[in-house]
Amino acid sequence: MNPHPKLCIHTITTKPWSVETAIGKYAEAGIGGITVWRQWLEGRDPEKIGERIRAAGLEAVSVCRGGFFPAPTAAERATAIEDNRQAIREAAALGAPLVVLVCGAVPGQPLAESRQQIADGIAAVLPLAEELNVRLGIEPLHPMYADDRSAINTMASANEVCDRLDHPLVGIAADVYHIWWDPDLAEQIALTGEKNRLFAFHLCDWLTPTVDLLNDRGLMGEGCIDLKGIRAMVEAAGFNGYHEVEIFSNRWWAVDQDEFLAKIVRAYGEHC
Amino acid sequence: MNPHPKLCIHTITTKPWSVETAIGKYAEAGIGGITVWRQWLEGRDPEKIGERIRAAGLEAVSVCRGGFFPAPTAAERATAIEDNRQAIREAAALGAPLVVLVCGAVPGQPLAESRQQIADGIAAVLPLAEELNVRLGIEPLHPMYADDRSAINTMASANEVCDRLDHPLVGIAADVYHIWWDPDLAEQIALTGEKNRLFAFHLCDWLTPTVDLLNDRGLMGEGCIDLKGIRAMVEAAGFNGYHEVEIFSNRWWAVDQDEFLAKIVRAYGEHC
Repeated sequence: MNPHPKLCIHTITTKPWSVETAIGKYAEAGIGGITVWRQWLEGRDPEKIGERIRAAGLEAVSVCRGGFFPAPTAAERATAIEDNRQAIREAAALGAPLVVLVCGAVPGQPLAESRQQIADGIAAVLPLAEELNVRLGIEPLHPMYADDRSAINTMASANEVCDRLDHPLVGIAADVYHIWWDPDLAEQIALTGEKNRLFAFHLCDWLTPTVDLLNDRGLMGEGCIDLKGIRAMVEAAGFNGYHEVEIFSNRWWAVDQDEFLAKIVRAYGEHC
Repeated sequence: MNPHPKLCIHTITTKPWSVETAIGKYAEAGIGGITVWRQWLEGRDPEKIGERIRAAGLEAVSVCRGGFFPAPTAAERATAIEDNRQAIREAAALGAPLVVLVCGAVPGQPLAESRQQIADGIAAVLPLAEELNVRLGIEPLHPMYADDRSAINTMASANEVCDRLDHPLVGIAADVYHIWWDPDLAEQIALTGEKNRLFAFHLCDWLTPTVDLLNDRGLMGEGCIDLKGIRAMVEAAGFNGYHEVEIFSNRWWAVDQDEFLAKIVRAYGEHC
């Protein structure tokens, strides 16, 4: 019996490992799932990687990441849409039911305009998502990424774009790092439950001090996020999917990854 | 005639200068106001600094900063309250009508609890604020400071605490750096107008990339914030106070401050 059936790790969390190494190590650690970042599929056949994942006793939870829809020109937006179609194909080939969307933003372009381009971009890829039965999970990003990574910075904003698209394949990937500070969090997570649109739940922690805006996330328990509290909120909203550990950390990437993996498993048991 | 009557600069913006140097340089540049950070008053008599400000033809716009009310123990909270009383006395001595509050947060303490401690702390200092006729401006801080600097991270949250206290001396200091990303910004700024509680308006810019969470703010025009758009919102809300330039920047503090001051004045004219 797999001792951590609901635990999933993102390949980027153990960045030094190839996807093949990650699959082997995660399975050995008794973890249930793996989320594959697209860079880890480069030069691979995603169907074969999917087989390897299942042969190891793991489930392919999602593909990270699509998105980055907004752009100043229609030609650039068309390129982004094509890249998202490719991500959907990769997820289908891998056997993953979900593509996570880091939706994108353009510095200086009004965020409302970017949100419209995001909604339009998602609408454009929905026919293929339907055909291949792949879900699309909008990940609200922390407001410190509103300049160039995502114009969707709160659960409310993600819910609003989902409402606009109103499609069973469009939902939300909730990452504690991005949303923990939000006074409306409980209410907005509850709303995702009512609408059956909470597709993923990502874990890490917020460090004090945070010394890098991108790559200084903490291991669960190292920081100030109320992980058990937020888990209770998503479970109250009916979420029973994977608990995905997604840690970008120059500090953790620099240590022995076997040791780090053991710490992830322990921290998950203690703090989540 | 003062060529920039509505322009105010925070002493921390030109960090290498003493308050005496800043007063002289700002006046020479034709600026209308100065906001004095408390560190600049150390070893000085604030009354004398106030006289010097007025003699130079400037107005003392505010004192930065009070706040940091939340703490795990009642004794620490009492110390914070006493320090805020001191800030109020300094503002009164200086002749500044406002103390800006960076309200505080404690890593790991629920933000709702911190907000209650903030409201309690402000309530505790209000009698002195009334006696000395000094306003208190809650500054919502960017969510990236929710761990240890402020549990008030949106205009909505600041408005909510103001509603709770419901006092004409309690209002909001709106800093574009902290609030520019907020989808509810226009609506929440309009609300501050209805309630007559927009006490201050701070300017700088958001850089892409931002390489330091604290000290990498941009000069107006260097970044992605829609400064004219937000200015239009505050003016539509009836705000006609100073436009305060508050830039924490290791990069700008390292250049010749006379040159930087000239650039601030130019950027203010062009981008705000």
